[in-house]
Amino acid sequence: MSNGQGNIPRTEIEAFGEFGLIDLLTKNIKLKNKSTITGVGDDTAVLEKDKEKYQLITTDLLVEGVHFDMSYTPLKHLGYKAVVVNFSDIYAMNGTPRQVVIGMSVSNRFSVEAIEEIYSGIYLACEMYGVDVVGGDTTASPGSLFLSITAIGEVKKEDITYRKGAAEGDLVCVSGDLGAAYMGLLILEREKKAYEANPNVQPDLSGHDYILERQLKPEARKDIVELLKKENIRPTSMIDISDGLASDMLHICEHTGLGVHLYEEKLPIDLATVNVADEFEILPSVAALNGGEDYELLFTVKLDDHEKIKNQKNIRIIGHMTDISNGRYLVSNDGNLVALKAQGWDALKKDKGGSPGNSQKS
Amino acid sequence: MSNGQGNIPRTEIEAFGEFGLIDLLTKNIKLKNKSTITGVGDDTAVLEKDKEKYQLITTDLLVEGVHFDMSYTPLKHLGYKAVVVNFSDIYAMNGTPRQVVIGMSVSNRFSVEAIEEIYSGIYLACEMYGVDVVGGDTTASPGSLFLSITAIGEVKKEDITYRKGAAEGDLVCVSGDLGAAYMGLLILEREKKAYEANPNVQPDLSGHDYILERQLKPEARKDIVELLKKENIRPTSMIDISDGLASDMLHICEHTGLGVHLYEEKLPIDLATVNVADEFEILPSVAALNGGEDYELLFTVKLDDHEKIKNQKNIRIIGHMTDISNGRYLVSNDGNLVALKAQGWDALKKDKGGSPGNSQKS
Repeated sequence: MSNGQGNIPRTEIEAFGEFGLIDLLTKNIKLKNKSTITGVGDDTAVLEKDKEKYQLITTDLLVEGVHFDMSYTPLKHLGYKAVVVNFSDIYAMNGTPRQVVIGMSVSNRFSVEAIEEIYSGIYLACEMYGVDVVGGDTTASPGSLFLSITAIGEVKKEDITYRKGAAEGDLVCVSGDLGAAYMGLLILEREKKAYEANPNVQPDLSGHDYILERQLKPEARKDIVELLKKENIRPTSMIDISDGLASDMLHICEHTGLGVHLYEEKLPIDLATVNVADEFEILPSVAALNGGEDYELLFTVKLDDHEKIKNQKNIRIIGHMTDISNGRYLVSNDGNLVALKAQGWDALKKDKGGSPGNSQKS
Repeated sequence: MSNGQGNIPRTEIEAFGEFGLIDLLTKNIKLKNKSTITGVGDDTAVLEKDKEKYQLITTDLLVEGVHFDMSYTPLKHLGYKAVVVNFSDIYAMNGTPRQVVIGMSVSNRFSVEAIEEIYSGIYLACEMYGVDVVGGDTTASPGSLFLSITAIGEVKKEDITYRKGAAEGDLVCVSGDLGAAYMGLLILEREKKAYEANPNVQPDLSGHDYILERQLKPEARKDIVELLKKENIRPTSMIDISDGLASDMLHICEHTGLGVHLYEEKLPIDLATVNVADEFEILPSVAALNGGEDYELLFTVKLDDHEKIKNQKNIRIIGHMTDISNGRYLVSNDGNLVALKAQGWDALKKDKGGSPGNSQKS
C-alpha cells in the first residue's frame, strides 16, 4: 500500500521547531475573503464582524505527554487551563472572549466521570470569564488525550491591539509576575520522579501553592484589559506570555522591526519563584525570561502614558522599545547587555541545549 | 501523586457512545452572550454577525487509527478531506464557508515534507471552496497524528436552515448517491489485510476509482446549496450525511418530533456501490442507510416545491415527513416497514453488534 510518503525527501521536524514550521506552512497564504482582516501571525486571527467590531479567533491544542502529564494534572484543572489559555490570546488582542468550541479525543482509559471532570473545569472557566460553550467534537483516541480548543471573541475596531503597533520609545510593560508556572512544573516533575523511585514517599508539595496554581490553573488577565480601558490607557502592542518573556518580547520586536531594552532589576518575580529557583540553582531572571506559561500580558504604551501606568500595582514597566540598531537586550543588574533569545517552550523541538529555561514538558 | 481520578466511580465511555456522551456533557449549558444564537445541537453553532447575517462555527477532529489509517490514506487527500468535511457542515446550514483554523499534532515519524503534503491538500480544498486559512496550532504528538479543524462560515439570516425546521408532509430529499464511501473503505481494508498477509501481493484497487475517491477525497455539496438558491427552493431542514442516512435522518426526526417514511426503491445508489456491496454480501440499501461519510446533503422541502425539485438530476426525493404516530421507517421494496436505526459510524462505541453497516474504522 502506498500513502504518498514513499519518495518524498525527509527533513526532520525538530530541525524547524514550531515557529519555523508554521512559517513554512503558511508563507504562501493569499487571503480571498473580504471578511478576513488578518490571518496567521498574531495572537488571534481577525475577522470582520460588523461596522463597529472585529471578531477574534484562536485555537490551541493540548496533548497528553506533550503539554501535560496526567500523573499530576487534576482533570478539572486541565479543562480549566485548556480554555483559559485561549481566552488569554483573545485578551492579548485587547478583546473579550465570547464563545468556545471544544474538541476532545479520549481513549477508553478514561471513564465517563473523568471526562465530566475535565468538562467541569471547562464550564467553570467559561462561567468565570462569561464565555459560552457552543459546540465541539468528542471522539476516540488510540492513546493520548487530546484537547483542541477554539475560542471566539470580539473587540471594538478602535481598541484592537496588534503585535505590530509598538513604536520606538514606547514603554514595555508586563502584568503580574513571571517564572512561577515554570517553577511549579519543576516541583511537580521532581516529586513525580521521587514517587516513581519510591511509591511509599508521599509527594511534598507543601508551601508551593502559588507556583503550583500558576502551573496547573493559570488565569487570563481579563482584569488588566478592563483596567487599561478604565484608565484610558491604549496599549500600542500586546501579546500574552505563553512561550516566555524573551520569546514573546521578540515576537513584538519582529512584528515592528524594532529593538528593545529590558531591565533585569525591573522583572516582576514573586518571592516564591525566587526561592524555588534558588533551590534548583536557576537564576530567577532566567526563569522569568524563558519559563513560559505565565499567561501574563506583555504590552507597550506611549511614553505619554507613563504617569497613568507607573502606579498600577499589577503592572510593571520593564523596559522600552528602541531602534533596531540598539539591539534586543536584557540589561543585567551588573550592567551587561544580554541578547534576548527565544529559548522558551517549543513543543516541536526535541533538544534545545539544556538551558535551565527550557520548559521541556516531557 | 493524585490527579483527582482516585475516588470517582467509573462508567465506561462505550456505554454512552458519541451522542450519549455529548448529551451528558452539554445538557446543562446555559448561554450567556447575546451574540450566541444557538450552541450545541445542529451541524454548526450559530452566532450573531451583523444585521443581515449569522456566523456559523463547526469543529471536527480526525485521529489516526480512529478516523483514518495512514497505511492507505494519501497525505494530501487526508488534508483535503479534513477541511472538506467541515465545509460540509457549513453547507448543511445553507451557508458558505469563509475561514478555517487548523490544529495539527504530529509525531516525529512524520517529516516536514509529509506535513507539507497534508497542508497542500488543505490549501487545495480551501482554494476550491474559496476559504481562507486564518490560523492554527502545530504541536508534537507522542503517537497518533491528530487533526483538529474549525471552520467558520456565514449565512443570510433568512436563508439559515436548521434541523428542526421540517414539517409534516415535507418531502425528504438527498443529493448525490449514498453508500459509496463505505464500500471504498471495505475495499481498502480488504487490500490492506491481503498486503499484510503477503507483502508481495500488490493491492488490487483497479476499477474502484469512484468509491475510493468517495472515501479518500470526498467533496462537500457547495453546488447543491447554490442550486437550491438559484431555483428559489428553500429547504425547511437540512443536515449533512456523515454518520449514515439512517442516523442523520433520525437527527431531523428528533429535532422536529416527527416521523418519516423513506422508500428503499428511491435510495440513490451508484452501480459501483451496488457491485462492491454484492461482492461483500451486503444489501446496497444497508450500505446507503448505515455506511456514513457520504457528505451528501439530506434535506426537506415543502410539498409545493415538488415541481421544482423533481427534475434536478443531482437530487432525489426519497420519502416524506409524517406525524410521529406513523413511526420512522424505511419502506422496503417488498413493502415491509423497517425501523430506522442509528447504526452508522460512532467513533466512541466499541462494538455495535456486527451489522454490515458498521463503519468501525479499525
